[in-house]
Amino acid sequence: MIVVMKPGATEQDVRHVVDLVNEFGLKEHIIYGTNRTVIACLGDKRMVDKGAIENAPNVERIVPILAPYKIASREVQKEYTQIKIGPKDFGLGGTKIGVIAGPCAVENEKQLLQTAEKVSAAGCIGLRAGAFKPRTSPYSFQGLGVEGLKILAKAKKQTGLAVVTEVVAVEHVETVAEYVDVLQIGARNMQHYPLLEAMGKVKKPVLLKRGMSAQLDEFLLAAEYIINAGNSQVILCERGIRTFEEYVRNTLALAVVPELKDKTHLPVVVDPSHGTGHAHLVPAMCRAAVAAGADGLLIECHPDPEHALSDGAQSITPANLSELMPQLKKIAQAIGRDV
Amino acid sequence: MIVVMKPGATEQDVRHVVDLVNEFGLKEHIIYGTNRTVIACLGDKRMVDKGAIENAPNVERIVPILAPYKIASREVQKEYTQIKIGPKDFGLGGTKIGVIAGPCAVENEKQLLQTAEKVSAAGCIGLRAGAFKPRTSPYSFQGLGVEGLKILAKAKKQTGLAVVTEVVAVEHVETVAEYVDVLQIGARNMQHYPLLEAMGKVKKPVLLKRGMSAQLDEFLLAAEYIINAGNSQVILCERGIRTFEEYVRNTLALAVVPELKDKTHLPVVVDPSHGTGHAHLVPAMCRAAVAAGADGLLIECHPDPEHALSDGAQSITPANLSELMPQLKKIAQAIGRDV
Amino acid sequence: MIVVMKPGATEQDVRHVVDLVNEFGLKEHIIYGTNRTVIACLGDKRMVDKGAIENAPNVERIVPILAPYKIASREVQKEYTQIKIGPKDFGLGGTKIGVIAGPCAVENEKQLLQTAEKVSAAGCIGLRAGAFKPRTSPYSFQGLGVEGLKILAKAKKQTGLAVVTEVVAVEHVETVAEYVDVLQIGARNMQHYPLLEAMGKVKKPVLLKRGMSAQLDEFLLAAEYIINAGNSQVILCERGIRTFEEYVRNTLALAVVPELKDKTHLPVVVDPSHGTGHAHLVPAMCRAAVAAGADGLLIECHPDPEHALSDGAQSITPANLSELMPQLKKIAQAIGRDV
Amino acid sequence: MIVVMKPGATEQDVRHVVDLVNEFGLKEHIIYGTNRTVIACLGDKRMVDKGAIENAPNVERIVPILAPYKIASREVQKEYTQIKIGPKDFGLGGTKIGVIAGPCAVENEKQLLQTAEKVSAAGCIGLRAGAFKPRTSPYSFQGLGVEGLKILAKAKKQTGLAVVTEVVAVEHVETVAEYVDVLQIGARNMQHYPLLEAMGKVKKPVLLKRGMSAQLDEFLLAAEYIINAGNSQVILCERGIRTFEEYVRNTLALAVVPELKDKTHLPVVVDPSHGTGHAHLVPAMCRAAVAAGADGLLIECHPDPEHALSDGAQSITPANLSELMPQLKKIAQAIGRDV
Repeated sequence: MIVVMKPGATEQDVRHVVDLVNEFGLKEHIIYGTNRTVIACLGDKRMVDKGAIENAPNVERIVPILAPYKIASREVQKEYTQIKIGPKDFGLGGTKIGVIAGPCAVENEKQLLQTAEKVSAAGCIGLRAGAFKPRTSPYSFQGLGVEGLKILAKAKKQTGLAVVTEVVAVEHVETVAEYVDVLQIGARNMQHYPLLEAMGKVKKPVLLKRGMSAQLDEFLLAAEYIINAGNSQVILCERGIRTFEEYVRNTLALAVVPELKDKTHLPVVVDPSHGTGHAHLVPAMCRAAVAAGADGLLIECHPDPEHALSDGAQSITPANLSELMPQLKKIAQAIGRDV
Repeated sequence: MIVVMKPGATEQDVRHVVDLVNEFGLKEHIIYGTNRTVIACLGDKRMVDKGAIENAPNVERIVPILAPYKIASREVQKEYTQIKIGPKDFGLGGTKIGVIAGPCAVENEKQLLQTAEKVSAAGCIGLRAGAFKPRTSPYSFQGLGVEGLKILAKAKKQTGLAVVTEVVAVEHVETVAEYVDVLQIGARNMQHYPLLEAMGKVKKPVLLKRGMSAQLDEFLLAAEYIINAGNSQVILCERGIRTFEEYVRNTLALAVVPELKDKTHLPVVVDPSHGTGHAHLVPAMCRAAVAAGADGLLIECHPDPEHALSDGAQSITPANLSELMPQLKKIAQAIGRDV
Repeated sequence: MIVVMKPGATEQDVRHVVDLVNEFGLKEHIIYGTNRTVIACLGDKRMVDKGAIENAPNVERIVPILAPYKIASREVQKEYTQIKIGPKDFGLGGTKIGVIAGPCAVENEKQLLQTAEKVSAAGCIGLRAGAFKPRTSPYSFQGLGVEGLKILAKAKKQTGLAVVTEVVAVEHVETVAEYVDVLQIGARNMQHYPLLEAMGKVKKPVLLKRGMSAQLDEFLLAAEYIINAGNSQVILCERGIRTFEEYVRNTLALAVVPELKDKTHLPVVVDPSHGTGHAHLVPAMCRAAVAAGADGLLIECHPDPEHALSDGAQSITPANLSELMPQLKKIAQAIGRDV
Repeated sequence: MIVVMKPGATEQDVRHVVDLVNEFGLKEHIIYGTNRTVIACLGDKRMVDKGAIENAPNVERIVPILAPYKIASREVQKEYTQIKIGPKDFGLGGTKIGVIAGPCAVENEKQLLQTAEKVSAAGCIGLRAGAFKPRTSPYSFQGLGVEGLKILAKAKKQTGLAVVTEVVAVEHVETVAEYVDVLQIGARNMQHYPLLEAMGKVKKPVLLKRGMSAQLDEFLLAAEYIINAGNSQVILCERGIRTFEEYVRNTLALAVVPELKDKTHLPVVVDPSHGTGHAHLVPAMCRAAVAAGADGLLIECHPDPEHALSDGAQSITPANLSELMPQLKKIAQAIGRDV
């Protein structure tokens, strides 16, 4: 942390800041520059609330030097983490890219089993579908609940696909963990701390979606909550951020993929369905995500999007998926990977 | 809802959309324009997932006509709702503007009681302070929990102030409701639906903060979750949104105040502390919020911001508050209100 | 400027950076911290492209310490600049707040003269109206040009109002300067550098609008271009920024007002018309801007907004204006100023 | 255009709107819905200022149905436009993807000629470098001007590369057009209308960069200004937008590529250098852009980024470029194209 003093700060102002710095268990190092005095604070105290010092007289601003996260960082672990998912122990984060597809929600058994067959036939390694749905409107379809989980387990048994589903409430965690392979934390819950902490007790991988206005540091701190609570199997998922753009539901920020691969050892997957909001943009963004270095994809795929109970606009069909997979394979191979 | 067809849409494409529209229980009304055919859909079905139709052949886009919220709307209730808070039954949403101030967190009894005295002496009607803190970092101070609630209750008894505190987990709701006057839902939890639903059972007012990237419709739908679950005492709070601006922690979007007063009957308060992130900007933004028509303010105020355990940078001192209150009173009077 | 090295940076990496730093004419000061080595660079070289060093081996990032602007800064000039505008030499930036109102565009002589009379009668000190319009669409009304300037000059003669109009092209600068009192640089032209430089030769005040996605530093650097080119009479204007918000055309970032008053000595005015895009939000935002500390307001006012050739949606009527002015006066008085 | 009336609008309010609609040369079609009356306006009048009607009594809002641009649209021309650039008449917008690389600025003859040789050897089809630089700070390097243009012409002669350079002022247009193959309009000038109109007279292709906060409609309207002024050879360039993200200079919105290919017949290129701001993210984003369907790339490439006079942080080296090109070729082939 570096404290930048205002021009005109007196020696007394500087001493006052040094006292605060020392109180926080940090050692000061003062530099008298041409226009500003700056105080470098030495020591590894990531938990200090920097704001406290900002209020001292004649302090201009505080510049943090260390990232606020730690165990999620490649400084602590250089090699990439591989996370085994599903009955076939697919290693997400390895050379092979894992594609996970399925409808927004489990609507009924027939719909899901048929979709699962097609998702599996297309070469995907996982099935996604919601049993508990977080819906913006209280009047929208809210999911089948435990009934949906049972259908998911059946689909898994039948296809060998890894099953991914969202958990929205702490009290559902145990039940959900019983039925599925990967627990998803949705974008709206990225900073739902009791839920993050509950993930620590789960012995299954967690797919953590980036909040729609989350900075990278906040995203990695959310992952760190889970790891810190006892579960190091965290998969990060970019799903688009909220910007001024109108032609998309969200702006898919693909540069986050190489940046995350630089900063953290955790696997990174991309959700181009929420990341664009429109089915006609999804295939191109799947291709782009693979080319950008994503370890996996999460795609909404519905056999009859016109009648989907939710997210119909952003769901591709199983036929679209079958056409897309060989292209993804070639792109993966172009960068020394595979699908 | 209006469905806009692409140029070149055939009569068959139009029929197909009409069939879907009818399936949803809506009646169609087709208009053949110069460049486009559009299908107006008549009927009040706010819960239909419009996306479903977007996927039909040759549909360009769907334009919703009705707002997705209802009972929070001034269409349903024209007169503004007044919500009584605290031991003195202050009517928030009436002519008098209510100022609520206090530290980010309850740090200890002495700090809180002293602050409460000063907050009360300055003319505020409420005391805010967190007992359970949602923190971005797992390494930050997490609050005193129930101990903090007890201190808050003591402060209330001593000063007569209405006590406002945040609730972050469903399992805390009952306990928190026992001790305080107003339960706050933080910005990160605006779409934490189980928590919103839990508010429905509480017999106390709820202060709902706008999520940092929430659209107005999403904000009002979150309020509608609470009302729909059985609690109509919802206070809306603007606390800044996430934008590209760097000199502030958040951009305080004050135009939301007159817009909300136009669209909803619920009271609207403003939090200029989170809304700017820097103490030196707080007084000006308090003045602006009152001038913009806010029904109340939520201000972080700490007796020793340099040593605050959290949010020190955005806390003003009790001395700042005492200086500010008479200005707010005059501005309120300038627009026919009072503080 | 501070260079933060990556963990694992060798002594050779540090030496390499020091060599680069010295090449730039800066002196290095190396601090070996617990987790990072940082190199403080001493000397006042604001023009160095910091990016150059970011590319050196094992450099993590560069932290600028000094603001990139200088002469616009309160470090160089502590006292606020007052700029005299119009035939009555109104001092913008002084205790009295100056309200400037008028239609988006000069549409015809009758419309403008009538509006000017009402604007003057309401107590405004300036008249705004465009003669050359920058329009997003090539098919929109582009303004009356020189004819419009002549009408503006007539209105000025008739009312004594200071006349403000936008200039969009370098070749118009001289002509526009001949007819009006204040030259406006629109938001789209904030970084139109040839135009900014042309302002340097003008002997009249310049009203510089903030670009719709301009950071504060960029805004002040644009002002610095003009001052540096020879014209120190620059008035800054906040007019809303582009964010994800849908209920407004732009998000009016009022906290920029106290922040600018802290950082620069230049007068700051606010345009709540473009800043919201909807007439029904304008009066509340005018009140808020005055309460936030603005030195002036720029308001779109049209006698018949339903028939305005541009910006009708955000124009208030002369009747609205007359009702608003006494409120603004009272708010100004509440903070020790006047209108 | 559709006018949505407020609930409670009277028959008289509706008639008033119909009169306005008719005045604009549009025909009305009234639909009385369950909750709202809406008035569909028939006819193709893209230039009507919709705001005018928003101000009429009891109008809730106006919904535009037609896109505001026309001749840039695929409704008018279904087949993609191919634009021939440079001495070898490379067809941008065809099956082959064109890579254009080079330093931010022409710094001196030796630097440029050497870079050009390497850019050509790597398989690129164009050379980019600025002679006139628009710089945020008046204290930054402003470019070599005409001297730079002469060096560019020499590089072109020596390598056969198409030369692309930015033009920042109307008075430079003719001179720049004399020396180079493609004139670039920078992001800051996307709505610099006199410059756009000046492009109409130029007989060379124009590369138009998206403004950093431009909506898609605004981007295409800027293209339409140029086409409308007489030059239909417009190449669109996505270069990142301004969002809240901190780890990048801009957020590269790659979904704009498939969206633009859907909406317009003009070629689309991507600039991952400005689009990320950091050299280490550029290769991954080049790969992603090709996979997303871009017709070309614009890459900053400098032989010695540590000593670049501008944009050093985002410049890759010729060695990086040589390594990248074969990967791009394989990705292009994976989607049936080539580099």
